[in-house]
Amino acid sequence: MMMLENLKKFNIILASKSPRRQDLLKGIGIDFQILTKDVDESYPERMSVFEVAPYLSVKKAKAFEENELPDNYMVITADTIVVVDDKILGKPKDADDARRMLRLMSGKKHSVITGVTILTKEKSKTFSVTSKVSFDVLDEEEINYYINNYKPMDKAGAYGVQEWIGYIGVNYVEGSYFNVMGLPTQKLYQMLKCF
Amino acid sequence: MMMLENLKKFNIILASKSPRRQDLLKGIGIDFQILTKDVDESYPERMSVFEVAPYLSVKKAKAFEENELPDNYMVITADTIVVVDDKILGKPKDADDARRMLRLMSGKKHSVITGVTILTKEKSKTFSVTSKVSFDVLDEEEINYYINNYKPMDKAGAYGVQEWIGYIGVNYVEGSYFNVMGLPTQKLYQMLKCF
Repeated sequence: MMMLENLKKFNIILASKSPRRQDLLKGIGIDFQILTKDVDESYPERMSVFEVAPYLSVKKAKAFEENELPDNYMVITADTIVVVDDKILGKPKDADDARRMLRLMSGKKHSVITGVTILTKEKSKTFSVTSKVSFDVLDEEEINYYINNYKPMDKAGAYGVQEWIGYIGVNYVEGSYFNVMGLPTQKLYQMLKCF
Repeated sequence: MMMLENLKKFNIILASKSPRRQDLLKGIGIDFQILTKDVDESYPERMSVFEVAPYLSVKKAKAFEENELPDNYMVITADTIVVVDDKILGKPKDADDARRMLRLMSGKKHSVITGVTILTKEKSKTFSVTSKVSFDVLDEEEINYYINNYKPMDKAGAYGVQEWIGYIGVNYVEGSYFNVMGLPTQKLYQMLKCF
């Protein structure tokens, strides 16, 4: 049984390779398929950090628009970035880069911003959600243990809040926890309910 | 490999039947066994709501003390309560009671308090962590869908934040997310590190 009756006419596509994001969309209780397209994830250099995630979600959605979406299709795209000291942390290049990022976030607050775009043939909606996350002071042993055992190279900011480092290091979240994992499920549910 | 070298001399016991709490302790990365004892979970009527969870965690720990804990054993106990409008919500009696609780929390903030006690032959430590959780307005259809499909009768406050109702209904957490699930992992890790 699916709660959102208004979505029954759509074949829903989630355009994301992230298994975390796939689990989060499953958590809302809707049926969907996965279909991703290669998108250049660059953004204008002078863009405000708060505009980047929604901008990239629109870019990912446009890859579908160009191929003429059939009537009964809905595409959901998302992009998550980590912002610390007004700078964006992307995915780390290697273990040293991951170490640098975790040292940077140790003992302070950072922001996690997810931009989401919902696209059908008729219309599109884009929104973003920001959560604040605070790490307690992480020592070198903890940072090395995490990087060696969890290899967070596929994660913006070099960490997964649902992994060991989140259990032992995050002392505070302000906002949506699922947004920190990669998808603001509650806001997305509300947007889909009224789409 | 286990990070907390100082715990290697202990056989750790988690005194909790909750599979969520067991998963959360696993998430910290320590080895433990499960052993529970029956404890009367009543508390003094006029006790401040903030004292109840730590009081009950001490009561659960005392069930072990009486049986003379061996030198190399460490017991961890915990109790989680939900407080809304200065009243404690326990586990719901039935579906109607669960409906009452979810209606009460709909569209507002409540507190989730977990009390934890760590006990060895030499010493014991007790602490508690409070998180605030905000539910968006839940409609009757959503409340009924959740209760029928998830049967949250084993959960204080009649909900699991990691279940459907948490995905679609919780718009805000302030504090530790894992504490809302039943164990404040980060604070517990810090307490164990310095035990």
